[in-house]
Amino acid sequence: MITAELAKAAKPGDSPIDTLYGLVAEDMRATDRVIHERMASAVALIPDLSAHLIDSGGKRLRPLLTLAAATAFGASGIDHVKLAAAVEFIHTATLLHDDVVDASALRRGKIAANVVWGNKPSILVGDFLFSRAFELMVETGNLGVLGILARASSVIAEGEVMQLKSANNLGTTEQDYLAVVTAKTAALFAASAEAGAAVAGAPPALVKSLHDYGHNLGIAFQLIDDALDYSGREKLMGKSVGDDFREAKVTLPVILAYQRATDEARRFWRRAIESGRQEESDLEAAIVYVEQTGAIRETHARAEAYAERAIRAVAKLPSPDIRNALIDIAEFCLRRGH
Amino acid sequence: MITAELAKAAKPGDSPIDTLYGLVAEDMRATDRVIHERMASAVALIPDLSAHLIDSGGKRLRPLLTLAAATAFGASGIDHVKLAAAVEFIHTATLLHDDVVDASALRRGKIAANVVWGNKPSILVGDFLFSRAFELMVETGNLGVLGILARASSVIAEGEVMQLKSANNLGTTEQDYLAVVTAKTAALFAASAEAGAAVAGAPPALVKSLHDYGHNLGIAFQLIDDALDYSGREKLMGKSVGDDFREAKVTLPVILAYQRATDEARRFWRRAIESGRQEESDLEAAIVYVEQTGAIRETHARAEAYAERAIRAVAKLPSPDIRNALIDIAEFCLRRGH
Repeated sequence: MITAELAKAAKPGDSPIDTLYGLVAEDMRATDRVIHERMASAVALIPDLSAHLIDSGGKRLRPLLTLAAATAFGASGIDHVKLAAAVEFIHTATLLHDDVVDASALRRGKIAANVVWGNKPSILVGDFLFSRAFELMVETGNLGVLGILARASSVIAEGEVMQLKSANNLGTTEQDYLAVVTAKTAALFAASAEAGAAVAGAPPALVKSLHDYGHNLGIAFQLIDDALDYSGREKLMGKSVGDDFREAKVTLPVILAYQRATDEARRFWRRAIESGRQEESDLEAAIVYVEQTGAIRETHARAEAYAERAIRAVAKLPSPDIRNALIDIAEFCLRRGH
Repeated sequence: MITAELAKAAKPGDSPIDTLYGLVAEDMRATDRVIHERMASAVALIPDLSAHLIDSGGKRLRPLLTLAAATAFGASGIDHVKLAAAVEFIHTATLLHDDVVDASALRRGKIAANVVWGNKPSILVGDFLFSRAFELMVETGNLGVLGILARASSVIAEGEVMQLKSANNLGTTEQDYLAVVTAKTAALFAASAEAGAAVAGAPPALVKSLHDYGHNLGIAFQLIDDALDYSGREKLMGKSVGDDFREAKVTLPVILAYQRATDEARRFWRRAIESGRQEESDLEAAIVYVEQTGAIRETHARAEAYAERAIRAVAKLPSPDIRNALIDIAEFCLRRGH
């Protein structure tokens, strides 16, 4: 959900993501080869539908974290590359299922797979990619990383189920929201970085550091993403604004704006979010309310705190190049929102 | 898809499935405990929806195969029990996704989960159970069985995607049909039995025997199941007849009947299956056509050949009790159709 916007927000060559990409360029090309080899199937619909999403310009941020973490601890061979491909397959599978669940029309600026091929193939190809991810992990022969990613996968699914409850529900608390973000976004960021360190044989304390980096970066990213959905400026960056609002998702900007709302504004939120009856001009009004109440500023402040934790987590990473690139990515994530 | 019908077809205590159940009764109770412990989640919807399907009277045939195979080779401890629970989770996940894909109204005689809770939770809880299955497998620490079941899972998904193409399509060949049945049904039967033998440390030749037993039994079961869908007698056995026909699925009885059809009958099949315009009396006509052309008899004959292969596959199994029960189950499978 995040990588596409990042890709568009960054000018080629000048983003810290590109810098990190450069540090693991050979492994990333190998990962891309594994991804394309392993999404192959005699059933043509499987690679067709998979390629539609996998080749749609996502930044491969999660496999990038896996490769970066592995490289920081001197990984060689092919296992960390297979893991990186597995992580991208898990992510792609969740996107395919997400888009069916949300009845999304667009994904990364293209018509979503569920619209092109229908819900049935999207569900089943998601299942296929998910299974392929586990096949790749089994090939590494590393039970530790299998455990990390199996656990992350069930946490992601739990987060997605949790999120269903918060739609149309202004009773959603900050705690509920953070639990969803932690599960549906941060868990895979954390597992991607952690698994890379683990497969490269990093010491346990540093494996945990990479986990913490991914976890905090994931939350910061999602917070900024949710703020951008109410940002007027965002249209400039190629992101469609108002998706969450139109789907009546209760994200942190809404939670904070509702807490601080006047009676009139509360009536507005209840109609627009709880009853789901929205009018043409509602998005503009919502943007004004989240700005006026300081909800966007506050969401950014939270994101900043998580990004700082991410930065602190990698302070002791042995490889200075990788460490600096990871730090820059955490800072870059915040700049997206300003 | 099969176990519910089997459960109803068998009088309690007199089916060979019950006999096998008796031989692994303690392990099966332990499997049930693991299943219920591991479908727990702080997100209440997950155990609620899971229990709706898991406690709906399925016969646990796949975990039964895992436990039987493991017991035949003297398994002790808890690993084969965890695997059996994992196999049931994978099966349950595929049923949840199947019912969304087919827009099913009923499952095992109860209102389907997708009708009670909607498609979204069904998709996501399926993902959760699938991930939990892998967590359980990781706990066994056995990479060999992880590989067997990861591979089976991607083959199942491939089979389900393949099956989409055969709906409304009278160009479906026997070979297409067998490829679908092998992937979507036989692969998990085969992997369930194989994984049980492998985790118990059976010699490779006998691990393969168990695989072959499950594979052939799975095909035989599915063939009989597809024949029963066109059987007038079947209403007596509590099965709803005509589901495949109404969904315009091209199963072997239809393929054979269409091959042997008169011009008039061909027009009937094209209208009912290809155009999907069905009338009230069409199911009765379809039943007459599949009977008259010998398509049902022929489907049974094929099932018999697969059941015989299943029986031959376990001829060298060391445990006579388990061996005989497995043989009886293969024979029992055919009796369902007469």
